[in-house]
Amino acid sequence: MTELKNDRFLRALARQPVDRTPVWMMRQAGRYLPEYRATREKAGDFLSLCRNTPLACEVTLQPLERFPLDAAILFSDILTIPDALGLGLYFETGEGPKFKNTIRSAADVDALPNIKADVDLDYVMNAVSTIRSALNGSVPLIGFSGSPWTLATYMVEGGSSKDFREAKKLAYGQPDVMHRLLDHLADAVIDYLNSQIKAGAQVVQIFDTWGGILSGWAYEAFSLQYMRKIVNGLIREADGRHVPVILFTKNGGQWLESMADTGADAVGLDWTTDIGDARARVGDRVALQGNLDPTMLYAPKERIREEVGDILRRYGSGPGHIFNLGHGITPEVDPEHAKAFIEAVVELSPEYHR
Amino acid sequence: MTELKNDRFLRALARQPVDRTPVWMMRQAGRYLPEYRATREKAGDFLSLCRNTPLACEVTLQPLERFPLDAAILFSDILTIPDALGLGLYFETGEGPKFKNTIRSAADVDALPNIKADVDLDYVMNAVSTIRSALNGSVPLIGFSGSPWTLATYMVEGGSSKDFREAKKLAYGQPDVMHRLLDHLADAVIDYLNSQIKAGAQVVQIFDTWGGILSGWAYEAFSLQYMRKIVNGLIREADGRHVPVILFTKNGGQWLESMADTGADAVGLDWTTDIGDARARVGDRVALQGNLDPTMLYAPKERIREEVGDILRRYGSGPGHIFNLGHGITPEVDPEHAKAFIEAVVELSPEYHR
Repeated sequence: MTELKNDRFLRALARQPVDRTPVWMMRQAGRYLPEYRATREKAGDFLSLCRNTPLACEVTLQPLERFPLDAAILFSDILTIPDALGLGLYFETGEGPKFKNTIRSAADVDALPNIKADVDLDYVMNAVSTIRSALNGSVPLIGFSGSPWTLATYMVEGGSSKDFREAKKLAYGQPDVMHRLLDHLADAVIDYLNSQIKAGAQVVQIFDTWGGILSGWAYEAFSLQYMRKIVNGLIREADGRHVPVILFTKNGGQWLESMADTGADAVGLDWTTDIGDARARVGDRVALQGNLDPTMLYAPKERIREEVGDILRRYGSGPGHIFNLGHGITPEVDPEHAKAFIEAVVELSPEYHR
Repeated sequence: MTELKNDRFLRALARQPVDRTPVWMMRQAGRYLPEYRATREKAGDFLSLCRNTPLACEVTLQPLERFPLDAAILFSDILTIPDALGLGLYFETGEGPKFKNTIRSAADVDALPNIKADVDLDYVMNAVSTIRSALNGSVPLIGFSGSPWTLATYMVEGGSSKDFREAKKLAYGQPDVMHRLLDHLADAVIDYLNSQIKAGAQVVQIFDTWGGILSGWAYEAFSLQYMRKIVNGLIREADGRHVPVILFTKNGGQWLESMADTGADAVGLDWTTDIGDARARVGDRVALQGNLDPTMLYAPKERIREEVGDILRRYGSGPGHIFNLGHGITPEVDPEHAKAFIEAVVELSPEYHR
């Protein structure tokens, strides 16, 4: 294997000393970049871009050419698994993801096929191996999946939702059916992430976008339990290196301790949680990733820099922090403001690692 | 004044012993009730209903005729103040509230008029006094307002928003302008709630629907600070009774301690926070109001009852709990399920008050 030239991200995930805080951005390959929009134009639509190996590789690398980022993340969608399960993913302009079919009953769950990621999601594995090769050891490659609960909400609702009433109707009214769905999805996610690791992913992140809409007990029962199962089912070593897992539950700030106890290497924080408080709560158990409010990127550059400084100060000295946004970067952000954010991390963080 | 026949709610707010846990529901006068829909039809639209004193009174009382509720809440909207400030509130079907004008600059803020609630929102005061009279001491009447931050988000965005980027652009980029707006709104809310108290409101609640989209420091700076100012500016005694204040920040579970330190009598919890943990965190400082997931009302009645039992058990014995939903009841709920919820509180809670 090619030697890894920049292992700052992996070292921070292992809470080992680094020269500065590593940084990457959720959705860093995205619409805020004009070069992304140009490539997407060539591909046709978003899903065609995900399925086009050379173009998916191209957009993955674009932000790395602009900014001194410490990780690349596979260009794909969190909903590839439900799509492979036959639900028919599509996107309507300005409306977010939708499914042609929904899962609302025991019969619907029982009819779901068993998929093999290598075969049924081969386009994702092709993208992973192509990107890994193209990176040529410059930075580590992150693979990812949606969490079972998050996938289930979209599958039951048929898309996103304001109050997720259909998903909750199933979870509260027929918990056995919801658990069968979640278990099926957890197995699929394990296979999917392990295939990504075999194809070259060096870190994996589980995106639990909708765990935060649950009560504490329901988060444990319907979301965290299945993420724990995934963490336990993953390949944890590849190429002689540990493969770290990052758990990210949006609006999960109340449950950091139990997230840290899953065996994950890192917990992702959205911007609502104070990262200093979070560090005090999880102690040495995990690294922390986050947590600039993505909307802060609309502020003047000096204000962005000031906020980066505040977050670094709140986390404090020593390793274990990966700087990121608290959620994905939004399409209207000026790339120069993203640059100001990343440069602020590069310039202001070394003093916390002396 | 008419003697208050049921003071269970006021006693619980004062953390005094009660025979059972009091219960009411946010948005209890609402579209889930067929009789509400019939009255609204007569009024025309939602805003006409708010402005029609006899009909606003009628819908306020409707849920009390059906269910053994321990409080009535003024039928109105959280956005009456911005409307009175000249922003032109209107509702588009299925789209939520909108404003014809927005506030985006220092000049916009400086041009806002000073309003007097007695004059400019006289229809609200007429509703309060009429409802108070009509209640005839059966249960206490709750008045309310949106929090300054919540009002500001709608005023800056011109409606609701997914990421509140315009409000945050102003808050992060021109904090002095945002603070001037918030201060103006805090003064207006103080006058508005004091007028409601003078007109007959016996409890007031501040709805901070959008405080939870902020980082911890920003919640303190842009939302909590102004709610604290309001608490300090309110009339706290009327008719020889203390007038309790309830603070409710949706997604505010990470900041309960600082909410409890504002001088408010109670903190409202959405459903994401475990009420037992919340009680341990705030101790004897405040009463707690909440916190059934409103979506639980779509579950079978036995499941609703079980969940009520769980929440009572988590809160534990002794006073200081007001049962409520964690957010407003939604239009599609079967009133029989709302009834099952309220009856479960009535039947299961006495054992925690022996």
